[in-house]
Amino acid sequence: MAFLALNLLDSGVQLSMLCAVIGLIFAFVLIAIVARSPAGNERMRQISGAVQEGAKAYLNRQVVTISVIAVIIFILLFIFKDPPTAIGFVVGAFCSLSAGFIGMRIAVIANVRTTQAATSSSTRALRIAFNGGAVTGLLVVGLALLSVSIFYTAANKMVGHDMAIRSLVGLALGASLISVFARLGGGIYTKAADVGADLVGKIEQGFEEDDPRNPATIADNVGDNVGDCAGMAADVFETYAVSLIGAILVGALTLVGNSAAIIYPFVLGGISVLGAICGVLFVNVANGKPAAVLMGGVLTSAIISAILFWPATHYLFPTGLTIGGATRTPTQLYFASLIGLVMTAVVVAITNYYTSMRYAPVQKIARASETGHATNIIAGLAVGQHATALPVGFIGIAILLSFHFAGLYGIAIAVMSMLSMAGIIISLDSFGPITDNAGGIAVMSNLPKEVRAVTDQLDAVGNTMKAVTKGYAIASAGLAALVLFGSYVEELKAHVTRNGEPFVFQFSLTEPKVIIGLFLGGLLPFIFTAFSMDAVGKAAGAVVREVRRQLKAKPGILTGQDIPEYGTCVDIVTKAALREMIVPALLPLVFVVAVAIIKPLGPVVLGGLLVGTIVTGLFVAIAMTSGGGAWDNAKKFIEEGNLGGKGSFAHAASVTGDTVGDPYKDTAGPAINPMIKVVNIVAILIIPIFF
Amino acid sequence: MAFLALNLLDSGVQLSMLCAVIGLIFAFVLIAIVARSPAGNERMRQISGAVQEGAKAYLNRQVVTISVIAVIIFILLFIFKDPPTAIGFVVGAFCSLSAGFIGMRIAVIANVRTTQAATSSSTRALRIAFNGGAVTGLLVVGLALLSVSIFYTAANKMVGHDMAIRSLVGLALGASLISVFARLGGGIYTKAADVGADLVGKIEQGFEEDDPRNPATIADNVGDNVGDCAGMAADVFETYAVSLIGAILVGALTLVGNSAAIIYPFVLGGISVLGAICGVLFVNVANGKPAAVLMGGVLTSAIISAILFWPATHYLFPTGLTIGGATRTPTQLYFASLIGLVMTAVVVAITNYYTSMRYAPVQKIARASETGHATNIIAGLAVGQHATALPVGFIGIAILLSFHFAGLYGIAIAVMSMLSMAGIIISLDSFGPITDNAGGIAVMSNLPKEVRAVTDQLDAVGNTMKAVTKGYAIASAGLAALVLFGSYVEELKAHVTRNGEPFVFQFSLTEPKVIIGLFLGGLLPFIFTAFSMDAVGKAAGAVVREVRRQLKAKPGILTGQDIPEYGTCVDIVTKAALREMIVPALLPLVFVVAVAIIKPLGPVVLGGLLVGTIVTGLFVAIAMTSGGGAWDNAKKFIEEGNLGGKGSFAHAASVTGDTVGDPYKDTAGPAINPMIKVVNIVAILIIPIFF
Repeated sequence: MAFLALNLLDSGVQLSMLCAVIGLIFAFVLIAIVARSPAGNERMRQISGAVQEGAKAYLNRQVVTISVIAVIIFILLFIFKDPPTAIGFVVGAFCSLSAGFIGMRIAVIANVRTTQAATSSSTRALRIAFNGGAVTGLLVVGLALLSVSIFYTAANKMVGHDMAIRSLVGLALGASLISVFARLGGGIYTKAADVGADLVGKIEQGFEEDDPRNPATIADNVGDNVGDCAGMAADVFETYAVSLIGAILVGALTLVGNSAAIIYPFVLGGISVLGAICGVLFVNVANGKPAAVLMGGVLTSAIISAILFWPATHYLFPTGLTIGGATRTPTQLYFASLIGLVMTAVVVAITNYYTSMRYAPVQKIARASETGHATNIIAGLAVGQHATALPVGFIGIAILLSFHFAGLYGIAIAVMSMLSMAGIIISLDSFGPITDNAGGIAVMSNLPKEVRAVTDQLDAVGNTMKAVTKGYAIASAGLAALVLFGSYVEELKAHVTRNGEPFVFQFSLTEPKVIIGLFLGGLLPFIFTAFSMDAVGKAAGAVVREVRRQLKAKPGILTGQDIPEYGTCVDIVTKAALREMIVPALLPLVFVVAVAIIKPLGPVVLGGLLVGTIVTGLFVAIAMTSGGGAWDNAKKFIEEGNLGGKGSFAHAASVTGDTVGDPYKDTAGPAINPMIKVVNIVAILIIPIFF
Repeated sequence: MAFLALNLLDSGVQLSMLCAVIGLIFAFVLIAIVARSPAGNERMRQISGAVQEGAKAYLNRQVVTISVIAVIIFILLFIFKDPPTAIGFVVGAFCSLSAGFIGMRIAVIANVRTTQAATSSSTRALRIAFNGGAVTGLLVVGLALLSVSIFYTAANKMVGHDMAIRSLVGLALGASLISVFARLGGGIYTKAADVGADLVGKIEQGFEEDDPRNPATIADNVGDNVGDCAGMAADVFETYAVSLIGAILVGALTLVGNSAAIIYPFVLGGISVLGAICGVLFVNVANGKPAAVLMGGVLTSAIISAILFWPATHYLFPTGLTIGGATRTPTQLYFASLIGLVMTAVVVAITNYYTSMRYAPVQKIARASETGHATNIIAGLAVGQHATALPVGFIGIAILLSFHFAGLYGIAIAVMSMLSMAGIIISLDSFGPITDNAGGIAVMSNLPKEVRAVTDQLDAVGNTMKAVTKGYAIASAGLAALVLFGSYVEELKAHVTRNGEPFVFQFSLTEPKVIIGLFLGGLLPFIFTAFSMDAVGKAAGAVVREVRRQLKAKPGILTGQDIPEYGTCVDIVTKAALREMIVPALLPLVFVVAVAIIKPLGPVVLGGLLVGTIVTGLFVAIAMTSGGGAWDNAKKFIEEGNLGGKGSFAHAASVTGDTVGDPYKDTAGPAINPMIKVVNIVAILIIPIFF
């Protein structure tokens, strides 16, 4: 029986590896297709090369900075925890960094080719940009599935099953922590450059976006790649790997000895790779409006996954699963997995409503711009806050239903199935910065205005897609973090004894320590984002001063006679981003360890802290990412010629809103996502050390 | 023994009534002093009269609107609860409305006299404005103490002790609900007028503040009175009454039969009236910088209270108090009461740091204005979020310590002693709008610039004082709400049975229903403030359109040849405020009842909701009120001649920040305070109806 169980475990994990490999092969085919298409003229390749060089230089320096911190944590884990966990940490960190590099590399291959394709056909440009995104999506998901399953299989053989499960938490920490750094570093970079370029360029000088006379314009385009591509890829790698590990943990901790419960998340992940491939194929053959085609791809992917989940669930759990004494039927487990797919659709639809220029919220912000900067800001802040209501309501329903179907494990399954959609969802997200960069290359290469019109149209779709995938990421992060909190409680149960007896902590709201924990945890997202926004503000201020200096020193830049020194701006932003990311990125780590160490606090306060961070983190993140997306598209709505169009008073106000929204949606907001999980993972890891 | 206990109860409550009456007499003496000082020339009295008329007209219409809702709730309480609770509701509602009227009446008496005093002496102006505020402070506190003690004594005689305690919850609901309406209605009024006047007046036309050519200027001054004076007075009445009732409830529910525990909060309140009187006297004899004199008044008040609390505690609890089996010494109880006083000082100091122009945060916002509107907004948002850290940290310490000294009752005592400072704190708060109005009257009456300089200097101090008292109000509201949550749990224990047995609900974080409750509760402050900001935005938009229309129809207004139609602006704002306050004010009520009724939710989700609202409410409220205050003073910092001074690019950006901060700090942020309590009180009230 034990032999059979182990066999099933092996074959299930192998199946998921096989699917991951299929996904990787498909990704390489896509790379070949993208790389085969023409890369444009010399000037275009030159600009693309400069952007690529800046991005590579930044990521390399980021690796050095992060490595110092990673080595320290590796040593601490090695000494205070155990070698397998420390090695897991290195694997997670390495893969998360690699995911970032992959995202950036693919984007710089695809962007110039998208520009070139836009000279001939909108559909062709759409497909190249999307396929570039899809490569990142499939590579990141494949990497996540492979790294977790290989590490797990190897650790299983070398240190036994229990230790293997526990050392996965190390891998999760590596992935999350690096991802916080990548999100923050990249986010600060991209928005400092963007805000800095806009403040002087657009508002003071009246430049167009990506005007080659703007000294910060190359830095701005580098930013898209290191923030929106590299940062996002590291982030989604983390979300995927951590959700998978969270589900495995819950399976191992609450359903001891049941192998099927452990391999089920792997199988769901593997199957969805096939679903994602079908979705990508759909986009490559369908015709129609860009937004509709992309949504068709997501739908295809979800339907294929939903169909394949059914036989897989019945094969793994022919007689169901016993949880806490009660048997759950295979159909109940299947329903739990469907909840994740449905939640993806729901969150996508809601975020689309709040951030697409076709609906009331964005148009409300646009109209508020007519009465000035301040009313634009007030309207945008309100829209962001309104946008939290429906997602949180549906998350509540998802928790209630999936818990009803299969307890905490049901929630874990719902999260994993939601995350299994990551392959196709990242394809959409990467699509945005690729088209954004493609537009930049078109302007800087003096290509005809029609080319820019094509990329602008795709860029507006990309904006909404980016907001949509952020909503998806944060909703899944909230659920994944709840699963991790469940694991924290189980780990406490397993480890802590008082007077030689196992001791069960209570986390009741009537206990003041829980309330204090909720307050401290609730505080984290607020100060974390405050530090992040400060960082962007400071770095952007440095860019503004540098651009003003250059325009003053060389007045010929304005007339096109002098060429700006793009390099100094790139350099300033690079240094500022690396310097400013440290404090906010280490904040959650320090906070958790401090609460664990300081005497009257301890495990109960820490439990409250974990939940408090999830609760306020969810609201702050959704409000910031949706509000930011809505501000951006309100500006685009006016630029399309509504309410006075470009150059009007309303347009100036909408630019202010867009600029405020930049650090909201691309730095602070999305970084909350990995931060919530770092907090929970660190808490799990330090239980045996401090309690 | 029972007779002795009842006797003690009576005499303790009588003592607090006596103190309240002393406070009222002192207030009437102050009114006489203020009213005796000269009211200025005819033009000044005319303007003051117009403002007073607008304010009265608004408050009267607000009473009509609120009364309709109050009558419906009275009938529902009468039918579904019991007559005493319904009557308590009416008493609370009536007193809360009266507090608002008192605040407004005193302010309009004091403002014109402050202007007149400013023509001769800054110290005299300070004292008149402060004494006007002190009248409101003492009347509101006296009213709160008297209404609760008289209602309690009468109910005790007529329906018995248990019913009297429970019907006090009705009084709390009346006070809180009316206060939400008053805060929202007044807040929407004042900020719609202010924002509307600024957007067209300052930004489009380059008017000074309170320029008589601005058609919205009278509405703006009316707004100060109905929002900052009437709304604030109703709010503090509510906070005081509800904290007192919360402490009585906890005493009665957890320490059954111990009369001293019930009268202790009354006695603390009574003693502090004497402390407040000493503080007021101090301000009237001291000389020095305005901010230092006012802070000296607060300190005097706190020291007197701290000294008198000692003998009172030892007299009431000669052998200590037995809580949950363990005896707490009188010294421990005394320490719990000191925590409230210390917390007041701590919160005042922290908020002062974040909102005074003398410190780094405000100056950071001012410097960020140099790079534009957007960086000003980003910096202000970040400052508001940073400002949450220390208050929440200290609230955590206060909870830990006061619980350590005397359990949940210790927290209740700390809150009551914190609130006992309300008399002197409101004096500071009311000071702000009175000087603001005084400045308005000076400008509109064409008094010499020096007069405006005096009132401006006092106004800047008033701005910080307003932010400080808001920090105080929200911190105490958070603690008071926790006490109410404790009462909710106790009430559930007392009422709910399953199969004839008493049933104890668990509120563990490992229970999904608690998590869902936390999410739903956490959502409330976000959408509540979103609706409030929308309301301000909509109403301000209407003002902008009206002002633009008038300036276009009568170009003579700009040159001073035509007189604007002030009345139409007053009328538009009045209607808009009354219309827009309904939805957000009823939202918390509807939310709580919906969660109670909808089947799979119920008491456990509701418990989570109460705590969730407190957690995010605290953060959102502090971030909004501190951020708003900081934005306002960043503008004042630039207007003092720093960073380019008035008319510079930085100044324009700082005006945008101030305008965004307006609904933050004067509408949405402070309204969270009563809202949190409405949610908790309604939950307590509906237990016997639905569970």
